[in-house]
Amino acid sequence: MQQTRLDTGRIRAARRVIDPVFLGTPLYRCEALEPGLGCVVSIKLETANPVRSFKGRGTEVVASLLAEHGPRAVVCASAGNLGQALAWSGRGRGLDVTVVASRFATAAKLDRIRALGAGLELVDGDHELARERAAAIARYDGIRLVEDSLDLETCEGAATIGLELVEARKRAKPGAQAKRADLTDLTNLTNLTDQADPTDLTNLTEQAELPVPAPPFDTVLIALGGGALATGVGHVLKALAPGVEVICVQPLGAPALTRSWHERRVVTTDSTDTIADGVAGRRPIPAVLDDLLLVADDAVLVQEASIITGMRMLLDHAGLVVEPSAALGIAAILEDRDRFAGRHVVTIVCGSNVDGDAYRRWVGAAALPHRV
Amino acid sequence: MQQTRLDTGRIRAARRVIDPVFLGTPLYRCEALEPGLGCVVSIKLETANPVRSFKGRGTEVVASLLAEHGPRAVVCASAGNLGQALAWSGRGRGLDVTVVASRFATAAKLDRIRALGAGLELVDGDHELARERAAAIARYDGIRLVEDSLDLETCEGAATIGLELVEARKRAKPGAQAKRADLTDLTNLTNLTDQADPTDLTNLTEQAELPVPAPPFDTVLIALGGGALATGVGHVLKALAPGVEVICVQPLGAPALTRSWHERRVVTTDSTDTIADGVAGRRPIPAVLDDLLLVADDAVLVQEASIITGMRMLLDHAGLVVEPSAALGIAAILEDRDRFAGRHVVTIVCGSNVDGDAYRRWVGAAALPHRV
Repeated sequence: MQQTRLDTGRIRAARRVIDPVFLGTPLYRCEALEPGLGCVVSIKLETANPVRSFKGRGTEVVASLLAEHGPRAVVCASAGNLGQALAWSGRGRGLDVTVVASRFATAAKLDRIRALGAGLELVDGDHELARERAAAIARYDGIRLVEDSLDLETCEGAATIGLELVEARKRAKPGAQAKRADLTDLTNLTNLTDQADPTDLTNLTEQAELPVPAPPFDTVLIALGGGALATGVGHVLKALAPGVEVICVQPLGAPALTRSWHERRVVTTDSTDTIADGVAGRRPIPAVLDDLLLVADDAVLVQEASIITGMRMLLDHAGLVVEPSAALGIAAILEDRDRFAGRHVVTIVCGSNVDGDAYRRWVGAAALPHRV
Repeated sequence: MQQTRLDTGRIRAARRVIDPVFLGTPLYRCEALEPGLGCVVSIKLETANPVRSFKGRGTEVVASLLAEHGPRAVVCASAGNLGQALAWSGRGRGLDVTVVASRFATAAKLDRIRALGAGLELVDGDHELARERAAAIARYDGIRLVEDSLDLETCEGAATIGLELVEARKRAKPGAQAKRADLTDLTNLTNLTDQADPTDLTNLTEQAELPVPAPPFDTVLIALGGGALATGVGHVLKALAPGVEVICVQPLGAPALTRSWHERRVVTTDSTDTIADGVAGRRPIPAVLDDLLLVADDAVLVQEASIITGMRMLLDHAGLVVEPSAALGIAAILEDRDRFAGRHVVTIVCGSNVDGDAYRRWVGAAALPHRV
C-alpha cells in the first residue's frame, strides 16, 4: 500500500509506553447477537478501563512523550472521551491538562474530566468551536495543543487495537484453532447452529447458517469521527492483514469525513445532527483524509434509528451499556444484512460514557427488555 | 499455609489449556465508584467473554482433559453459568454435554445453554435437586459427572484469576508505578481528589481521602457459592501474595457455606431465599470447606437490598450490567464502610447473565438513573 503518515514499527513502540490497563482488551464472539444480524460477530471491547473508551491508548502515548521531553502543560478540544483520557494520562505524569469542550457535551463525560483534576473550559458552540478555542489557548499560553487524529500519537495509540486484532486473528487461524481444540472434523460441528434458540431471531426472515467454530474475521467495522481510530486500525490491518475489509461507519447526521472519503477531497458541513456525540465533526483534517483514502475499503452512513437499535441489541444480547458511537458497527450491519451475511465481522465497541437519562430515552422505557 | 487440595504449579499448567478468550481479563480501578464506597475499588471483569461469566476458565480445563483422555459424554448440574460454559467448552471439542438445572433457573442462562447445543434437563426443585439428578444420570449412563467446586479442575480454572491478580499487583508496586509514570513526588498528586465532583457523593457523610495513584490492592472480595472461585483465587493469593486479605461474600438468604466456615463444620440449610441465583447452595461440600478454611480470612453475609444497590452502582458508575452474584463484593463494602475505608479493594465481577425483566424489577424503573 501507499505510505500513510503511520509506521507499524512506531505503533509497536507506542504500545510499550501505554499503561497495560488499556491494552489486551477483550475480543470475543457474541453468538447471542448473531441470529439478529445474520453474520458471525465479534466484539473488541474498549470500555473496561479507567476512562471507558479507547482514547487512553493515544493519550498514554502523548502524555509519556510530554513527561519525558515536552512542556508540562497541554490543552485539547474534546467531545469528552479524549479529554477524560488525557486528564487520566496527564494526572499520572504530573501534567497540567486543560480540556475545551462544547457546553452541550455529554454531562457524564464532563463530570469525569473534572473529577480527574483537569481544567475544563466550555464553549458556547459545537466541537469545531472547541477546537478553535483550544488552538487559541495553546497559542496564547504557549502550551502544547493535542489535536485528535492530526497528532500522530493519537492515531498510533488507537492503532495498537489493530495490532491486537491481527495477533488474535493469527491465533484463530482455522488450523491453529482445530489443533488447539483437538478437532479432526470441524464440519460435524456446523450442524449445531440448527439448535440455536429460534425465539432469538428478532429481525431475520430465515435462519442464517453461521459457522461453529467461526473462521477468522474478515471484516472490521470502525466508528469514524476525527479519523484516529479508523486510520490507526486501518493502517495496521492493511499492513499486516491486507485481506481484511476495513469499513468505516459514520452517522448520516455527521457525514463530513465519509463524504470526503467518497469524493476524495475535504467536504465540510454546516452542522451535525446525531446522538453519536463522539463522532460529530464537521471539518475533516486533510492529512487524516489522505490516510483514510489509503486504508479504508469503504465508508458508510447509518441512520439514528439504527444506532439506537444497535445500542439496544448490545444491551439485550451482550449485556453492554454503550455510547452511541460504539453502536455504529452494529447499525451498519442492520442496514445492509446482505452485504455481511455469513461473514465474520469485528465491531470495535469504542466507548461507554453516556448520560443515563439520555440512554434511557434512546433505548426506551423497556431499557432492558425481555432478555438482557 | 497448610495444604489445600490445590497446587500452584497445576494452576499454572491449567492456564495453558484454557482458551485465551477467557484469560487476561480487565483489571482496572473504577474511580467513579469510590466516592460512594469510601475506598479505592478495582474491578476484575469476568463478563466480557463468550459465556459472560468466569466459569469458562474451569470448563476449559475439564473439557480439554476429557477431549484428550476421558469419556466424550459429560453431565453437570448448574444454576446456569457452569452449564453454559461447559456447553461452550464441550462444543469446541466435540463433547456430548448434558446440563441439569432447576426449572426456576434464570431463563437467559437456560436459553444460552440450549443455543450452545447442550442437552438440558430441568428438575422441579432447586439446585441441590439438580445436583442429585446429575449424579444419577452420570451413574446410570456411565458418563462423566462434573461437580462444580468439588472437581479440582473447576477450582484450578477459577484460580487462574488469582494468578492474573498477583501478576498485576506485582506490576503495580508503588515503586514500579512511580517509575513508569516518571513521578518523583507522589504526594503532590493526592490533593487532586479534592476536586472530585461532590455531586457524586451518594451515600458518604464526609469525603474519603482516596490516594491518587492507588497503592497495590490489599483486599479481594469474592462471591461465595459452591466455593470454586473462593478456594481457587484464595489459594493463589495465600500462596503468592499472603498479605492480601481474602474475604468471601454470600447472601444472607443462602448462608450455608459462610456459616460452615464460621463454625468450622458443614452446616446445611433447608432452603435459600436470594436473587443471587449463582451462589444459592444449601449443602456445602466438605472437601471444599476444608480448603476454604485454609484460604479465606473472612466470610460475610449481605442483605438483598445491598446486592441490589451494588448492581445499581455498577450500572450507574461503571456502566456494567451484572447478575446479582457479581454485586456481592460491592454489597459487602456498602454494609461495612468503616472496615474498608481507605483500603484498595478488588471485587471480582463474576457474571452478567441476567433476565432483563428481573433486572429491571430489581434495579428499578429508573434502571439507568441520573448518570450511567
